[in-house]
Amino acid sequence: MRYELYYWPGIQGRGEFVRLALEDAGAAYVDVARERGNSAMTAMMDAKASATPPFAPPFLKAGKQVIGQTANILLYLGSRHGLAPKAEAGRLWLHQLQLTIADLVLEIHDTHHPLGPSLYYEDQRGPAKKRTIEFWKERVPKYLGYFESLVATRGGPYVTGRKITYVDLSLFQIVAGLRYAFPKRMQQFERNIPGLLALHDRVAARPNIEAYLASERRIAFNEDGIFRHYKVLDL
Amino acid sequence: MRYELYYWPGIQGRGEFVRLALEDAGAAYVDVARERGNSAMTAMMDAKASATPPFAPPFLKAGKQVIGQTANILLYLGSRHGLAPKAEAGRLWLHQLQLTIADLVLEIHDTHHPLGPSLYYEDQRGPAKKRTIEFWKERVPKYLGYFESLVATRGGPYVTGRKITYVDLSLFQIVAGLRYAFPKRMQQFERNIPGLLALHDRVAARPNIEAYLASERRIAFNEDGIFRHYKVLDL
Repeated sequence: MRYELYYWPGIQGRGEFVRLALEDAGAAYVDVARERGNSAMTAMMDAKASATPPFAPPFLKAGKQVIGQTANILLYLGSRHGLAPKAEAGRLWLHQLQLTIADLVLEIHDTHHPLGPSLYYEDQRGPAKKRTIEFWKERVPKYLGYFESLVATRGGPYVTGRKITYVDLSLFQIVAGLRYAFPKRMQQFERNIPGLLALHDRVAARPNIEAYLASERRIAFNEDGIFRHYKVLDL
Repeated sequence: MRYELYYWPGIQGRGEFVRLALEDAGAAYVDVARERGNSAMTAMMDAKASATPPFAPPFLKAGKQVIGQTANILLYLGSRHGLAPKAEAGRLWLHQLQLTIADLVLEIHDTHHPLGPSLYYEDQRGPAKKRTIEFWKERVPKYLGYFESLVATRGGPYVTGRKITYVDLSLFQIVAGLRYAFPKRMQQFERNIPGLLALHDRVAARPNIEAYLASERRIAFNEDGIFRHYKVLDL
């Protein structure tokens, strides 16, 4: 089956967590907005026109099904493509981890948008500074400490132990994104997460991921996405 | 099976979304922290001690399984207790809706904690005011408009049409909570969501829910939870 991925074309964003899974699995997919523009995406979000209209991108068309919410898409794809266990208990555990990553992603976004997504960063610089300080002081250690402890206590190199899952692909993205957005802060912090750094390197070295990262389908991080390099926040 | 629910004892919070489903289903459960204190809860979050340590409450012990993340718990419970379809496509659609509700819940919490959960509200009053204004201007219409349109286009009275699901129980909680936290703002806004108000009333009238709401297990909203009545934010 050839999937259709719907996401904003100019950023990695939340769509990237889905792309990494599709690419690692070697699944056939078309990135619709990048190839054909946004109008199909907007049409599918119309409640009058669609049986299951997503609230927002990303969403995946898989045959007749339209599946939204990043973690939900990965829940659907994971066990179908060898990136998650098949049994329910293991799937729910992985899904729980992905939902925790989604919470972290939202907090990363809120370092530059603490007053909400409908205002520009430039209109919330003061609160952004304060949020960022608290984020690095309290939240990064809590979230990344948790995932580091999972790698350590499961025997590694991945969060469930020896077998890679889509959660590991997402953690690669978290490490890469934080290094882009907060190079100074991350350089100081990352000595605390050797397991996650090793995980990042292993994921990057996987043949399909390596090929993807070198391709034009992997667009660069920029200041429109989740991970933004605002120097004034990276003290 | 008798479930064990683990959540902070003094608030409704995210745990309430799980309680409403357990209560509506008439499922046997013990609210562990309320009955026995927090120490068991904390122990289960220790990565060295547990096979699947949750990052945070709420989490549910179901036999040997420990399931965390509110929407994930409802995903597990829903089809087992007649509150979700059994087939995968319907379960994923409902789950997607619940994840959208979870995003709304986080934004509701951020009206009083825009600078993050590790600071007190009293240390972020200014940003809280600004966030709240944007929230009511842009975000409430977007989120509640979406759910209202689902009720309208599915023929109602529930978001998937004639059959109630755990998403409807959660939407009841959203309406009740917003009325508590922002009585003036909600009084103005709610004329836009007649379908959701009717849904709220239907849920409240369900026998098990009605009994629960009248019981001592339903603690009152307060200013420690997600929905907080700060008058200065409710202009």
